[in-house]
Amino acid sequence: MKVMVLFSGGVDSTTCLALAVRAHGAGNVIALSISYGQKHSREIEAARKIASYYNVDWKQLDLSTIFVDSDCSLLSSSCEEIPKETYAEQLIETGGKPVSTYVPFRNGLFIASAASMALSLGCEIIYYGPHADDAAGNAYPDCSEEFNDAMKTAVYIGSGKQLCIKAPFVDKTKKDIVKLGIELDVPYELTWSCYEGGNNPCGVCGTCRDRQNAFLANGVQDPLIK
Amino acid sequence: MKVMVLFSGGVDSTTCLALAVRAHGAGNVIALSISYGQKHSREIEAARKIASYYNVDWKQLDLSTIFVDSDCSLLSSSCEEIPKETYAEQLIETGGKPVSTYVPFRNGLFIASAASMALSLGCEIIYYGPHADDAAGNAYPDCSEEFNDAMKTAVYIGSGKQLCIKAPFVDKTKKDIVKLGIELDVPYELTWSCYEGGNNPCGVCGTCRDRQNAFLANGVQDPLIK
Repeated sequence: MKVMVLFSGGVDSTTCLALAVRAHGAGNVIALSISYGQKHSREIEAARKIASYYNVDWKQLDLSTIFVDSDCSLLSSSCEEIPKETYAEQLIETGGKPVSTYVPFRNGLFIASAASMALSLGCEIIYYGPHADDAAGNAYPDCSEEFNDAMKTAVYIGSGKQLCIKAPFVDKTKKDIVKLGIELDVPYELTWSCYEGGNNPCGVCGTCRDRQNAFLANGVQDPLIK
Repeated sequence: MKVMVLFSGGVDSTTCLALAVRAHGAGNVIALSISYGQKHSREIEAARKIASYYNVDWKQLDLSTIFVDSDCSLLSSSCEEIPKETYAEQLIETGGKPVSTYVPFRNGLFIASAASMALSLGCEIIYYGPHADDAAGNAYPDCSEEFNDAMKTAVYIGSGKQLCIKAPFVDKTKKDIVKLGIELDVPYELTWSCYEGGNNPCGVCGTCRDRQNAFLANGVQDPLIK
């Protein structure tokens, strides 16, 4: 059975890729990396290296034109600065609305694009890696279990029951994901999470903090921290 | 309130656009036309003319790279011929699977793309025009009410409750849509439905037949038939 993995090159989707390779064999896995106009290309470079490490077919898709009017702070088209606060602190500022790094309906768009491509390529499953921490407090509403359940149904029904979505981490924390990834020997030194595009992770953006905490909670150091 | 209409330039989405203009005023309506690698550009030309007729903001999006590996018979990348049978006849051939003019998860992808753009542009509603005839017998599973309900939930939840989907024709037939459109003075002479890209509609593809029947059932002639 052929499967597709939505694959950003970060900790979560790389662990997801490792799971898919274990379950289906590298020759049956297509990793799909989507550009959406990020301020840097570090994630895509990381994705390319990791796909090569796992010896899976790697596809790229550029959807940046869709977001040209967005003011999301992750986008090169935006003048907004990427926040340095934790998500909990940001949510106090936004009054519970999505944070400024929320890319409008990104996960919905990524899943839908993957579904169209997966059906064209004969894949029967799409794996992707949202987790419980991301959805907490509505920071990223398109990571919630409720959203995921609805997209699952939409893809299954809308594909004529030819395609399923699997989100193996939707009820797990990032700590749980790293724990599993360590067991699976995931090459986390090749991954990239930081929202900024420097040579080394900034260490202070929301995703850097979350990542470091997930490694520390497992008693290990993030391999990207020198 | 600003709204977006998914707008192909055919009978259904043009009637949907007319409804949105009546409800919100032309100045608040953005019509979005999406190319997906069709064998011809007649629909896009029709969409441009109709958007101009209604004096609404018109946006185009090209998603054809997503479908390069699809063998759907509507696509320029495919060698498949567009069938000349009715949908009922085609479904007997496919054994109840989606017909060869089913573009993989097209409606899901179109709604998701529209959602990302609508949120970026400050729209609160997306209108689109699937109807009961299209979903009949699983010909186009991404037109069914069950699919539509799931996408509605996915967009509402995944947008942080900022965006709603309205599909005003989901329980209506094409005959009902044309009846409403005649009442709303929709300029059907500007629309284009035929899957082929000739100077005049072929008159025999599935969508030509359905369209003619919908006009005849309302006691009028399709204005595109000379």
